[in-house]
Amino acid sequence: MNKQVRLARYPVGIPTEADFTIVESPILEPGPGEFLVRAIFLSLDPWHRLRMRDPALFGRQYGKSIEVGSLIPGAMVGEVVRSQNSGFRPGDVIESKLGWQQYAIYDGSGDRSDDAKGFSRVDPSLRPLSLALGVLGRTGMTAYFSLLDIGRPQPGSTVLVTSAAGATGSIAGQIAKIAGCRVVGVVGSAAKATAIMGELGFDAAIDYRTEDLDAALARSCPAGIDVFLDMVGGPIAEAALKHMNDFARCVIIGNIAEYDQPIDRYLGLKPQGYILAKRLRMEGFVVHDYAWRYAQALPILRRWLNEGRIKALEQVSNGIADVPKAFIAMLTGENYGKAVVRVGPDPAGR
Amino acid sequence: MNKQVRLARYPVGIPTEADFTIVESPILEPGPGEFLVRAIFLSLDPWHRLRMRDPALFGRQYGKSIEVGSLIPGAMVGEVVRSQNSGFRPGDVIESKLGWQQYAIYDGSGDRSDDAKGFSRVDPSLRPLSLALGVLGRTGMTAYFSLLDIGRPQPGSTVLVTSAAGATGSIAGQIAKIAGCRVVGVVGSAAKATAIMGELGFDAAIDYRTEDLDAALARSCPAGIDVFLDMVGGPIAEAALKHMNDFARCVIIGNIAEYDQPIDRYLGLKPQGYILAKRLRMEGFVVHDYAWRYAQALPILRRWLNEGRIKALEQVSNGIADVPKAFIAMLTGENYGKAVVRVGPDPAGR
Repeated sequence: MNKQVRLARYPVGIPTEADFTIVESPILEPGPGEFLVRAIFLSLDPWHRLRMRDPALFGRQYGKSIEVGSLIPGAMVGEVVRSQNSGFRPGDVIESKLGWQQYAIYDGSGDRSDDAKGFSRVDPSLRPLSLALGVLGRTGMTAYFSLLDIGRPQPGSTVLVTSAAGATGSIAGQIAKIAGCRVVGVVGSAAKATAIMGELGFDAAIDYRTEDLDAALARSCPAGIDVFLDMVGGPIAEAALKHMNDFARCVIIGNIAEYDQPIDRYLGLKPQGYILAKRLRMEGFVVHDYAWRYAQALPILRRWLNEGRIKALEQVSNGIADVPKAFIAMLTGENYGKAVVRVGPDPAGR
Repeated sequence: MNKQVRLARYPVGIPTEADFTIVESPILEPGPGEFLVRAIFLSLDPWHRLRMRDPALFGRQYGKSIEVGSLIPGAMVGEVVRSQNSGFRPGDVIESKLGWQQYAIYDGSGDRSDDAKGFSRVDPSLRPLSLALGVLGRTGMTAYFSLLDIGRPQPGSTVLVTSAAGATGSIAGQIAKIAGCRVVGVVGSAAKATAIMGELGFDAAIDYRTEDLDAALARSCPAGIDVFLDMVGGPIAEAALKHMNDFARCVIIGNIAEYDQPIDRYLGLKPQGYILAKRLRMEGFVVHDYAWRYAQALPILRRWLNEGRIKALEQVSNGIADVPKAFIAMLTGENYGKAVVRVGPDPAGR
């Protein structure tokens, strides 16, 4: 049998497990041109929350809302187990947005530049295979292009990263170190602060739950902030703006602090005075726009990973029934690094 | 005697005439290397209000606050009337930030890339000479570079301009028309709406004081907004964000709606949801950063002006005693185009 995680209803505020259902159905047989993929890892990402917003309340602000009752889309690393497509053989490993389920039928169609379609082949010897969802997947692509293309750090720049112990922030901070920057991370616990400064080599960390943000930013960014990679929004973003240097760049990768709210109920960042006076550039970033350049970033990230210059933090849960709990933990800041769920064993003997 | 406009106290909210004093003093004689300039036109600009904010309340957010009791700095077009500097002869006309006064001593030093110093020579046959403060001065430079360098319009783009009947907006809108764009202006009266659509060739106008902004933007920008040149901020900017196209550019040239307020009392624009979902770029613009490229823009603007492709709206007041009143009128949206004050006759017979 196949198990799928489906959306039971639109969450209000922080999702609860009751917003999801696990539905069993028979494993389908691939038709002509199709193949059956057995999931190994599922990817849980902040954008999922954005797509779980009631379209009646939110309208279309970021992608299309997931329909209640339907399979939750999401990236998967899986192994081809049966195939009626000559391009895909049993044992092939792919990464594709095949949804939060254990088995998927797919035909290999689509283009990765489309949010919902396409696939990439994964070296079956990669371990853990979840890296194809993290540093070598869209997470790594987000960190790489948002920092380097939009943030444009120089050696000696000060880079501030929010959600710094999270999937994207933990990679982006390490890339900024490789680029010769002073890197400061904002995190939600003392343990995370220790982790990013120790294991990941950040120069400083700020615990937004216990520290005065303004004082902490002044202390940890004595030369001001040149690049601000923001995953969080809200009061943290507002505090950071004040410490930006002239001509600095704010890259809006997410604003998870406000994903539960319609835009007109946002806290109300007050950016214009700072953007004008400091000639800041504040820019949005969605990784799919860079799909045509993934092939450029991937060998670089893989080399840094192999050389140990990037460490891939992962928060691995086990079993598809744990997907809702793991997803909620990610949204509430309990996880370190990339949130993935192992739903099946690695391919054997290859 | 020389008359100077000095700052009597920091205005609270909209300035009043009592915030200024007109002070008489003897006309000074130029010393070695110096020359005496007789003012012909003074320039009144929105940035003046920003520099009239009490530093105890506002800190340093945009330039340095003007000290109470001191001459108000500002651009002047004037004629050299006495000189002890071999580079400047009586009859020469220059534009320089010599302050709101009738006579100034100057030595020709400084670099225009500095906010407060430097000069440019003005063709003495230019009429009106106030154009050297408007379309051929910093106002024109602001319109040209903010639109073309930061806004980057393409033929067919929709460009939204706030303060569209004002100094910068009226020029920027016309340049956008030359660039092949659909141009929509936000103004504060029906008469201004008529003026920008008739005389200046804007495609549509929105009167923010009487129209529903959301409905008016939907009607006048049916293909969405690609470039938003904002002089105003506040609720107008917030309404515009919703109508931006993906990858559109918001250029923050000013936020005059909130100049009276410390940043922490701003209305609270809520940009992040839109910036992220639409991958907007929001960027600040201060014209001095482009001083090194004025020479590139000037012949182009002059040609457009000569060809009648740009019309220079001006609001001319007369006499230095009218400076405070004219300045207040500019801040409250009563003026059309560039606010200048004639404080002396043109050079005779040249």
